[in-house]
Amino acid sequence: MNEVTIGICGLGTVGGGVLEVLSRNADLITERSHTPLRVVHVSTRYERKDLEAGGITVSRDYRDVIADPGVQILIEAYGGTDHAGDIVRAAIRAGKQVVTANKALIAEQGNELFALAAEHGVSLRFEAAVAGGIPVIKALREGLAANRIEWLAGIINGTGNFILSEMRDRKRQFADVLAEAQALGYAEADPTFDIEGIDAAHKLTIMAAIAFGMPLRFDAVYTEGISTLTPEDLAYADELGYCIKHLGMARQGEQGVELRVHPTLLPMDLLLANVNGVKNAILVEGDAVGPTLYYGAGAGGSATASAVVADSIDLARQLSANQGCTVPPLGVTPAAVRDLPILPMGEVKTAWYLRLTAKDEPGVMSQVSSILGAQGISIEALIQKAAKGGAKQVPVVVITNIASQSNLDRAVASIEALDVIVAPVTRIRVETLDGQDG
Amino acid sequence: MNEVTIGICGLGTVGGGVLEVLSRNADLITERSHTPLRVVHVSTRYERKDLEAGGITVSRDYRDVIADPGVQILIEAYGGTDHAGDIVRAAIRAGKQVVTANKALIAEQGNELFALAAEHGVSLRFEAAVAGGIPVIKALREGLAANRIEWLAGIINGTGNFILSEMRDRKRQFADVLAEAQALGYAEADPTFDIEGIDAAHKLTIMAAIAFGMPLRFDAVYTEGISTLTPEDLAYADELGYCIKHLGMARQGEQGVELRVHPTLLPMDLLLANVNGVKNAILVEGDAVGPTLYYGAGAGGSATASAVVADSIDLARQLSANQGCTVPPLGVTPAAVRDLPILPMGEVKTAWYLRLTAKDEPGVMSQVSSILGAQGISIEALIQKAAKGGAKQVPVVVITNIASQSNLDRAVASIEALDVIVAPVTRIRVETLDGQDG
Ligand SMILES: NC(=O)c1ccc[n+]([C@@H]2O[C@H](COP(=O)([O-])OP(=O)(O)OC[C@H]3O[C@@H](n4cnc5c(N)ncnc54)[C@H](OP(=O)(O)O)[C@@H]3O)[C@@H](O)[C@H]2O)c1
Ligand SMILES: NC(=O)c1ccc[n+]([C@@H]2O[C@H](COP(=O)([O-])OP(=O)(O)OC[C@H]3O[C@@H](n4cnc5c(N)ncnc54)[C@H](OP(=O)(O)O)[C@@H]3O)[C@@H](O)[C@H]2O)c1
Repeated sequence: MNEVTIGICGLGTVGGGVLEVLSRNADLITERSHTPLRVVHVSTRYERKDLEAGGITVSRDYRDVIADPGVQILIEAYGGTDHAGDIVRAAIRAGKQVVTANKALIAEQGNELFALAAEHGVSLRFEAAVAGGIPVIKALREGLAANRIEWLAGIINGTGNFILSEMRDRKRQFADVLAEAQALGYAEADPTFDIEGIDAAHKLTIMAAIAFGMPLRFDAVYTEGISTLTPEDLAYADELGYCIKHLGMARQGEQGVELRVHPTLLPMDLLLANVNGVKNAILVEGDAVGPTLYYGAGAGGSATASAVVADSIDLARQLSANQGCTVPPLGVTPAAVRDLPILPMGEVKTAWYLRLTAKDEPGVMSQVSSILGAQGISIEALIQKAAKGGAKQVPVVVITNIASQSNLDRAVASIEALDVIVAPVTRIRVETLDGQDG
Repeated sequence: MNEVTIGICGLGTVGGGVLEVLSRNADLITERSHTPLRVVHVSTRYERKDLEAGGITVSRDYRDVIADPGVQILIEAYGGTDHAGDIVRAAIRAGKQVVTANKALIAEQGNELFALAAEHGVSLRFEAAVAGGIPVIKALREGLAANRIEWLAGIINGTGNFILSEMRDRKRQFADVLAEAQALGYAEADPTFDIEGIDAAHKLTIMAAIAFGMPLRFDAVYTEGISTLTPEDLAYADELGYCIKHLGMARQGEQGVELRVHPTLLPMDLLLANVNGVKNAILVEGDAVGPTLYYGAGAGGSATASAVVADSIDLARQLSANQGCTVPPLGVTPAAVRDLPILPMGEVKTAWYLRLTAKDEPGVMSQVSSILGAQGISIEALIQKAAKGGAKQVPVVVITNIASQSNLDRAVASIEALDVIVAPVTRIRVETLDGQDG
């Protein structure tokens, strides 16, 4: 097979994101799938001469995409449960592999849809339906497959988590933050699904079914929203050492399964309690592995596309597999493994923590900072303490801006040569890992 | 195919854990693999009449396991690179699928071993080699396959992280904590691999190769250990808002790839900075998904077995697949999906946060606590403040012990009926998610 062909119904946030990721990372994806993934047909209400120019058929009607015998994988990116259900059912009946990000559809109609897919010998994949780009469905279904899952707890609605984070950090009222979230595009014009926990209940339904091997039971999820929470409750919780999160909990107990979405106080020392803003995280307790946690962006066109495309790559790997060996050891086909140049350590740039031991004399800092300055290094933070109990030496601690190791090495050599410096300089790299909360 | 057969070489911590998990969760694993996974042959230095009684062939010599034509999947659980290399090579040549947890072997000989496996048309799988039970290899190779990975940063040696956590929290010296870690069994008698960063470099080598599609370059990893860190540096870092972690960093920059393991200051508000004790976590930055993080147990027989068995289930799913549909939608074969009973909310037990609005009169708390007591509910924490500026009402905030919702409902109804209570009671569930740091 020399390519795998894709059709996309709906080019909104997710459909557009998928197009973008497939095109930007086309080479990489080919190396990872054994085969190119090519979008051949899309449906949208808009004219897209740019896509047509690239050889993609653009239809107004999603039925044309489904009817196209040249489409192997159909991506449903319509949303809702009406049209989307029709699209998925028709695509399965047409013998296509189907990928969706639609949690409402899977949670509410999944039992029926999976049966239909099995009947037609195709896969219906939905990694993006839960926690956007975080591969938690794969973790539950494959990575943790050796475990009896005892419970899972997730912050699985970014809008709700953003609202609670703002209410706590800035002592703002719910309605006030909701209005801002709407303005920022985090919350829909009708925010009910987010703030009443329905969206979280959809996702919890899906995770619980996989974790416990039970049918999708959206009807059985107890759901409480966050609209009645007040900044006072968040502040009292804080005073007691807790953070309030809108949590989805699923637990497999002896008497039955618990399925519930509600505001929850979590002890502040848990990682989950420290997941802030629009981010999602899911903590899963397995009997063999113990607790594992998965964190990342739960929404956004690009993050969601990451999961939709991962599902498509999985399918492509299977469709093009030889001998059942679908995933190459290093993720790309052996021929695509490339000897990349390694950056010499001297050229690696980080910020630095430096601890100097100096004589307790005036002027130390001006000598040190002029040596650093000569290498283009500036001081971002500083601790300098008075000598204690008549000590003749004082510690000086500095955090620098980002500098290459070579420049730092030169500066440190000069600093150590100063008369006022009486011991070797301790140097530790500093990383801010920008982006975690971005 | 009605079963997939497994041979295990070495029944130490990992091999023993695999036997245990495969036997304890046998039914579940059968439902997830389409087929039973049966251990048919093991090698160990010890007599194991118990295993023989269960129909397992027990050999002294690992070569007997490899020579057994009845073994389809061979698990190398020997460790080291000498015998382990021989075992893996011989098993591949014998046409077996191979699973290992051996990071040293993969990092140092993986390029050659993967080529050999490809030549013989078998898979060599190694999820357990990085971060024990956390499915991060799967995340990199499959879940994030749509992304160009820009960098990853990991706390990937539990022993080292335990030592740093202890040094910081209890202001202890390195050598002191190391001795304790050895006594607790976290660190080997020869702790060099852990504290000098060699073990972390092995794991970083493997992750970087997958993330960037490059060969395994253990030789190119810059490595700095943690033995020179002092409690003073940890304290100064803390004062500046940082935590020192032994970090593995891999970054794909324009000038080349950075591969380095060294102590690193991380801002305290990053989740990674809050990963304490023997736990592992890896933060991965992908161009589509942004940052995602994977957290859990990086070692231990049972957690590592979770990953070894997951690899075996993946293989079994492939070996027994029909029509390329290897992973069922809900993780278990459709016939195994079971309608589980749902626990009614009244019977769900959690701790509770209650906020009462009471008249500013004496005796409120004794009435409240006797009502709670009558339902078997006790008070674990309490905030009671004096009325401000002549207010006639005071808030009373309580955290209870674990109680069912029915009991709590009854207590709240009685509390709301009290004369001294002037507004509806606010009630929010509390979860401690025990086990995260266990
Ligand atoms: N957005 C996220 O961050 C996110 C994250 C996870 C999961 N999801 C799920 O992904 C799915 C799609 O979400 P989205 O955010 O991409 O929605 P969206 O931006 O509203 O895009 C849906 C697109 O489908 C087409 N469409 C939908 N209804 C239509 C109708 N009645 N008639 C004609 N065209 C129609 C339109 O395509 P054209 O504009 O091309 O005509 C529309 O732009 C939903 O199930 C959602 O729950 C979204
Ligand atoms: N332990 C962990 O938490 C962990 C986590 C991740 C990865 N790993 C990796 O998993 C592998 C195994 O580690 P482990 O902790 O299970 O090691 P281990 O407890 O030392 O077990 C290895 C077993 O292999 C057999 N063996 C090894 N060398 C032998 C020799 N020269 N002669 C005879 N038998 C020999 C022995 O089996 P018998 O006792 O049955 O004779 C021994 O108990 C290593 O590559 C390690 O890096 C371990």
